[in-house]
Amino acid sequence: MAKRTGNGPATAESMATKQRDISVSEFFLKNRHLLGFDSPRRALLTAVKEAVDNSLDACEEAGVLPEIAVELEQIADSRFRVTVTDNGPGIVKNQIPKIFAKLLYGSKFHRLRMSRGQQGIGISAAGMYGQLTTGASTRILSRIKGAKKAHAMAVQIDTKQNKPAILSDTEQDWRPTFQAVNAAGEPDGPPVVSKHGTSVSIDMEAAYQRAKQSVDEFLKQCAIVNPHLTLHYRLALQTKAEPAAAKPEITAITYHRAVKEMPKIPDEILPHPHGVELGLLMQMLKDSESRTVRSALAHDFSRVSDQTAQDVCTRAGIDPKTNPTRIAHHESEALYKAIQDTKLMRPPTDCLSPIGEEQILAGLQKEIAADFFTAVTREPAVYRGNPFQVEIGIAFARPQENEGVGAEEPVRVLRFANRVPLLYQAGACAMTRAVIGVNWKSYGLSQPKDALPIGPVVVLVHLASVWVPFTSESKDAIASYAEIIDELTLALQECGRRLSVFLHKRERQLEAARKRSYMELYIPHLALGLKNILGLTDKEEHKVVGNLKKMLEKTHLDL
Amino acid sequence: MAKRTGNGPATAESMATKQRDISVSEFFLKNRHLLGFDSPRRALLTAVKEAVDNSLDACEEAGVLPEIAVELEQIADSRFRVTVTDNGPGIVKNQIPKIFAKLLYGSKFHRLRMSRGQQGIGISAAGMYGQLTTGASTRILSRIKGAKKAHAMAVQIDTKQNKPAILSDTEQDWRPTFQAVNAAGEPDGPPVVSKHGTSVSIDMEAAYQRAKQSVDEFLKQCAIVNPHLTLHYRLALQTKAEPAAAKPEITAITYHRAVKEMPKIPDEILPHPHGVELGLLMQMLKDSESRTVRSALAHDFSRVSDQTAQDVCTRAGIDPKTNPTRIAHHESEALYKAIQDTKLMRPPTDCLSPIGEEQILAGLQKEIAADFFTAVTREPAVYRGNPFQVEIGIAFARPQENEGVGAEEPVRVLRFANRVPLLYQAGACAMTRAVIGVNWKSYGLSQPKDALPIGPVVVLVHLASVWVPFTSESKDAIASYAEIIDELTLALQECGRRLSVFLHKRERQLEAARKRSYMELYIPHLALGLKNILGLTDKEEHKVVGNLKKMLEKTHLDL
Repeated sequence: MAKRTGNGPATAESMATKQRDISVSEFFLKNRHLLGFDSPRRALLTAVKEAVDNSLDACEEAGVLPEIAVELEQIADSRFRVTVTDNGPGIVKNQIPKIFAKLLYGSKFHRLRMSRGQQGIGISAAGMYGQLTTGASTRILSRIKGAKKAHAMAVQIDTKQNKPAILSDTEQDWRPTFQAVNAAGEPDGPPVVSKHGTSVSIDMEAAYQRAKQSVDEFLKQCAIVNPHLTLHYRLALQTKAEPAAAKPEITAITYHRAVKEMPKIPDEILPHPHGVELGLLMQMLKDSESRTVRSALAHDFSRVSDQTAQDVCTRAGIDPKTNPTRIAHHESEALYKAIQDTKLMRPPTDCLSPIGEEQILAGLQKEIAADFFTAVTREPAVYRGNPFQVEIGIAFARPQENEGVGAEEPVRVLRFANRVPLLYQAGACAMTRAVIGVNWKSYGLSQPKDALPIGPVVVLVHLASVWVPFTSESKDAIASYAEIIDELTLALQECGRRLSVFLHKRERQLEAARKRSYMELYIPHLALGLKNILGLTDKEEHKVVGNLKKMLEKTHLDL
Repeated sequence: MAKRTGNGPATAESMATKQRDISVSEFFLKNRHLLGFDSPRRALLTAVKEAVDNSLDACEEAGVLPEIAVELEQIADSRFRVTVTDNGPGIVKNQIPKIFAKLLYGSKFHRLRMSRGQQGIGISAAGMYGQLTTGASTRILSRIKGAKKAHAMAVQIDTKQNKPAILSDTEQDWRPTFQAVNAAGEPDGPPVVSKHGTSVSIDMEAAYQRAKQSVDEFLKQCAIVNPHLTLHYRLALQTKAEPAAAKPEITAITYHRAVKEMPKIPDEILPHPHGVELGLLMQMLKDSESRTVRSALAHDFSRVSDQTAQDVCTRAGIDPKTNPTRIAHHESEALYKAIQDTKLMRPPTDCLSPIGEEQILAGLQKEIAADFFTAVTREPAVYRGNPFQVEIGIAFARPQENEGVGAEEPVRVLRFANRVPLLYQAGACAMTRAVIGVNWKSYGLSQPKDALPIGPVVVLVHLASVWVPFTSESKDAIASYAEIIDELTLALQECGRRLSVFLHKRERQLEAARKRSYMELYIPHLALGLKNILGLTDKEEHKVVGNLKKMLEKTHLDL
């Protein structure tokens, strides 16, 4: 490489020589902020989030009640070792390198079913970031059910080719072990040992900070929306004291599971015809294993019966027995149009697993001291053919007893997608946009123009979908599809109406209390007047006061 | 594919069978909102933007004053044909398929130099979206300098493999032709014919809308920050009238270039050592063609002299003659630390080509009716080793004469990155964040908490960088790197101070005018009083009034 390349005007020929392939790893390495690795602080959160997402998905898919340990160990001034261990089904040896050291590889991308992970990027990206900033490898331990030993591997990404490089590969005696702690951070009962599970460990440049957007907050919110999860969190920070003498400062906490049932395992579904664009339809017909267009329509899509497939072909003027791979462009267009014009059932929704109104209320009540709670789970809806479901919870909190909530502050919005807390990019999120878009003044909250309403309110927003349309690969914010905004708005309005009833009642009660205390002031004077006019004894006067107070109280109750 | 796949609990083995590669095209097809194709309206803008960016980059790189024609033709209710033609250097035949039908392919990703494109995704993504929604191919015409004929090709993306498929490939007599129009949209002078250039045409599902975030707005802003560009824009919409009789409704406009000099062609630079992380340093040493660490440091990085390279090696305790490919992990760490501890000149900044204060003022004055203009171009700075430069322009506008500007409205922020207008995701952008973060109250504007200041102000923000850290592949918003926020803030504050001086002066003038009109009311009474007391004639009284008015005017001027 020359110290400086030529800078004169280029020609078509000279420009052609500079065209090159860009590997997806190179792309994301340079654009690491797209993946959530733009600052050392956010990097720590993103790595934890990706590992925990994977663990939860694996446990649920295998029908195992998840137990997960998250350990953050500060190993240098600006370096952390992140270790996440689960009691999941483990990973087959030959899959380990690709799962942990290759971007765009996974099992969740091509299927239509709700899960936390969906892109096949996250955990490999965390490893790539660790490798970039510390030169270290991603270490994996994994033991599958029935296996004698665990696989121990160290892998790195060859970023130029987006391929895994295996640095070490051995067998070990290892079993995932979990130690619960009590409120004081001391061991609470014997350790729990699983026969299977996976542990991943990454060293990275990182920074730890408490409070907003921290790992602590993420894990706490994780526990709220995953009540079936037992989560152990251990943080070991280097102290600033004399290095030689310094012992790390340890914080440990266990979130015990509140329920022992697994959430419903969502079903995998086939694409719904109304969500399939013309180009995709052409591709699907070309790839179909069916021998006729009719059976391709009936077997490769959801909600298409044999009869409906027949009707669609008739409407499109196509012989239903045509081989789907031999459909011409204009025939596809006719087919596409016929599909759009055919009334079909909405996509099946057993691919979704919402949290549920009861669980949302329980989660909010556990975490927030409030005078009013409500929750709404909407019926499933569809955007671009993808089923999704919206849930809202609202708490009217007591400001002095809750952090981050104030009578004069914007409401606090807790965002979740497929049960994963979203802590960054609130401003870019459809959820925030929907909250801002509702007219909260009509529900009794003040609201500046184009801004969140003001008040001691916590709004929990959850979107469950087979494909969550995130605004970036870091999965922090939801894209503003009109259908999603609409559903969010309807759910928020329903909660808003209920809040309004509560606030109205509360306002009336406060008003009555004000009136009462005002009238109470006059009761003794009134009694004194009566005493003088009617010549009452002190005892009689006392009785009058008592009666008047009782009347006032009764009136108050009737208000 | 079965109608429904099995849904029982999975095992490590059953999960392994479902792991698959995901092609980058499949990834972006499913995540098309990341690329700016989430709605038909935005898709139209994104396609135009990507094509115009490419044309401008190619022209500038080849030293050709750019002339570009953008044509939008509505070909069905929700379908448009987008055609962008330039007078650039043309594209060598064998590069055409990859440039237009393969994601992550290009010449701009691997170099450090300011350009509009950088990812090697944009135009292929536009073609892919067109293919998905209409099944049509991307059509390219290109003629390179000195060639007898133009290449005409039709290409599609094989999304499963992210590879181009060539559907047709012929030679044609073709020369890019540009027709300027006058204010009435009629031909203005003879057509201009170029001997070389490229034209790309894509059919896509799209919707056209005027005003905010429209193609019109994008092209208008493009012309502001690219004064060397001549741009022809033609829009043909289907009318709602009787289809058989209906002629399209044509709008045409030409933005003529205001200057005939090209912007400075920015230089390509080598990476700056302070922006290279440990992992990347290790990779660069491994890939180096130099035979010693010392010469690798001196030749593969900017701002490292032979002597500095020697010093770094000494500081790291490494023999400068070591072969760079044989450096061990701990040695790289030592080297990395030594580099961080070495004072180096900041990266060279001739890789940047800012707009300049003068041009920004000219652009604003051309477009905005205002009483005050100011502009600041900051010195280049560095984030993550990447040089960047920030520019701010401010206009205090007359609300009644400008659209989108109001005395009681939030200020209007026009955002640009490497001379490209950014119209979407304002809320997620570091530029918006920086404007919100400045305390505008101290400069005389009112400002709600955590919000844009209020007032009839237009703020132009430009970021020039060798690598613009966009928050998503659609390139609509800048990631909030602290260094970038800092530079933006300093430039905004400087403009704010100047605005404050203007507003202060204006306030004093308004105040003086108020006082004067108040005093003017009393002058006749005062003169009448003097007349009575001193027995003045009507003429003398008249003189007194005149003198008092003169005094008042003088006082006013002195205020």
